[in-house]
Amino acid sequence: MYSRIDALRGRLAGCGCEAFASFSAATNQWLSGFRGSTSAIVVTASDAIFLNDFRYTEQAASQVKGFTLQEVPGNIQVRAGEKLASLGAASVAFEPGYMTVAELDYVKSAYSGQLKPVPDVIGPLRMVKSKDEVDTIRAAGQLAEGVLADLIEDLKPGITERQLAARFEFEFKARGASGASFDTIAAFGAKSSLPHAQPGDKPLERGDIVLLDFGCRLNGYCSDLTRTFAFGTIPGAWFEEIYHLTLTAQRRALEAVGPGKPCREVDAIARDIITQGGHGKHFGHGLGHGVGIEIHESPRLNPESSAVLAPGMIVTVEPGIYLPGQGGVRIEDLVVVTEDGCENLSKAPKELRILGT
Amino acid sequence: MYSRIDALRGRLAGCGCEAFASFSAATNQWLSGFRGSTSAIVVTASDAIFLNDFRYTEQAASQVKGFTLQEVPGNIQVRAGEKLASLGAASVAFEPGYMTVAELDYVKSAYSGQLKPVPDVIGPLRMVKSKDEVDTIRAAGQLAEGVLADLIEDLKPGITERQLAARFEFEFKARGASGASFDTIAAFGAKSSLPHAQPGDKPLERGDIVLLDFGCRLNGYCSDLTRTFAFGTIPGAWFEEIYHLTLTAQRRALEAVGPGKPCREVDAIARDIITQGGHGKHFGHGLGHGVGIEIHESPRLNPESSAVLAPGMIVTVEPGIYLPGQGGVRIEDLVVVTEDGCENLSKAPKELRILGT
Repeated sequence: MYSRIDALRGRLAGCGCEAFASFSAATNQWLSGFRGSTSAIVVTASDAIFLNDFRYTEQAASQVKGFTLQEVPGNIQVRAGEKLASLGAASVAFEPGYMTVAELDYVKSAYSGQLKPVPDVIGPLRMVKSKDEVDTIRAAGQLAEGVLADLIEDLKPGITERQLAARFEFEFKARGASGASFDTIAAFGAKSSLPHAQPGDKPLERGDIVLLDFGCRLNGYCSDLTRTFAFGTIPGAWFEEIYHLTLTAQRRALEAVGPGKPCREVDAIARDIITQGGHGKHFGHGLGHGVGIEIHESPRLNPESSAVLAPGMIVTVEPGIYLPGQGGVRIEDLVVVTEDGCENLSKAPKELRILGT
Repeated sequence: MYSRIDALRGRLAGCGCEAFASFSAATNQWLSGFRGSTSAIVVTASDAIFLNDFRYTEQAASQVKGFTLQEVPGNIQVRAGEKLASLGAASVAFEPGYMTVAELDYVKSAYSGQLKPVPDVIGPLRMVKSKDEVDTIRAAGQLAEGVLADLIEDLKPGITERQLAARFEFEFKARGASGASFDTIAAFGAKSSLPHAQPGDKPLERGDIVLLDFGCRLNGYCSDLTRTFAFGTIPGAWFEEIYHLTLTAQRRALEAVGPGKPCREVDAIARDIITQGGHGKHFGHGLGHGVGIEIHESPRLNPESSAVLAPGMIVTVEPGIYLPGQGGVRIEDLVVVTEDGCENLSKAPKELRILGT
């Protein structure tokens, strides 16, 4: 954690600020190791202060490294503003994407110096994962893949989307994760055409698509994987067609992932293949996103992204084709950019598999 | 939903604004019925527009009521700013507690009118629940209490905190909830002294305190309940003492809940009893909080709150006493304020129960 605080101090110098303030759970976990929901961090050239409320005093004492700890009463943003004032910092950088207008106003009520939104003060640091972070995310991915392998083996007709999602999340915790990294998506049949489907009470039937998008949180880090299956035979050729088109797009995009590659170019590789296959309008989301402490973080792989891949970045590659009212396919792997390409952290097979046979 | 949009329009007139903009999942669910993570809402005197990205088009079509729907590409805040500009609104109210500085800047990049932070534009409306909302939260509470009743019946030594939390969350989904309303807290033994404990690998042993704080999300609304048990006999008198002191404080505070009552006075009733019992410094959090679409919402019951209870508000009443390194007790009910007091939505017994006998 000390080296991250030092790296932050280097960034502060670069943006002409004397201090940094944050109330973001994700940022504060990255800087301090703390995994609670509520905290405040204040960093200057000479001080690194961690503020928490009564609920988290014991937890902060055991998790936080590199900071002076202080329990504070009342509004934690106001307390942070008072701390900034007492430290005499003339200018304070903050992350505008992680601070609400109300939080900023609370700080201002106690601190009259300059508060400067600096979008890149932490993001570029956090985007590049350390070896320990990569190892943790790899382990989270393997835990979740183990759950997938076990649960699809004995999938039976009649189980509902909600029940299957519940089994995934039970197994995540039972096997040592702190929980799911996001609400598990289990979509059967036509519902697989909703990219962010919410599991419902539809029972599994022969001839259904089974789309599973899931991940767990292990030691504070997320995993993310999507696989799409057929449960029995799906009538017609359309499903196999969009499956193989999606898989081709995904594989070609994966081959392009490497250091120095603009994220929008990787997105374009998959998007062009799907568009040439006649389904461009059925792939309406970005190709992927960074994964770390948060399930969605920088860099983004989409047509508008200006990010460039670098070693240590962990991103998803997840093209999809969605036919409204009919069904959809998404295939998602999690990869870490290496010095000469990428390591695919996802080992689950991707060839089309017919379950329930 | 239409009446909520009209109520919002009344508030806009009151604060001198011609429009309202929101990207908050909670606010947007309350206004429109949408239960996805990402959306934008723009309301003027004559228009009510709901913007979503590709991922949510089918879901929005089925869930959103009272709005004109539009799928938009790219940055949804910029799209909302463009919409505000095209509608010609001179001034736009937003909720500062639900908008990040970055989101506001994106709106500003496309809209040059006045953007006015109005903390109370939605909050006071959302704080008072409709009959349907009360019924949904009551049902969520009863679902979760059913899980509690079943799981504590056959609690055996050796189960870990994490395994027990996993069982709660599995049962929530299996019984029809969309999931837990927050990460289930299962804390055994001395760990019960952490008010926001994260379940770990400690196995249950005879003589352990068992603190369970949990809730589910049903049809978009949260429940919240805490019960503390003894698993076998806990040596010494201290546990029974703090249990009964907590329970007395909770019951006396519950008696005081009613329309017109300042939240800080209800907090003070419980706090005074615990302080007189010698444990004031061991009750460092607020007495309670509002519950609805979010697990923590207005009003807050704490010493700094300026809120006053009114019929239809749903709040928790949850005093606790935490002895660091030794153990803790928290007892939490969920109540709805009525015309002449309150209805306790929580039916689970509160007398000290010794499990595992």
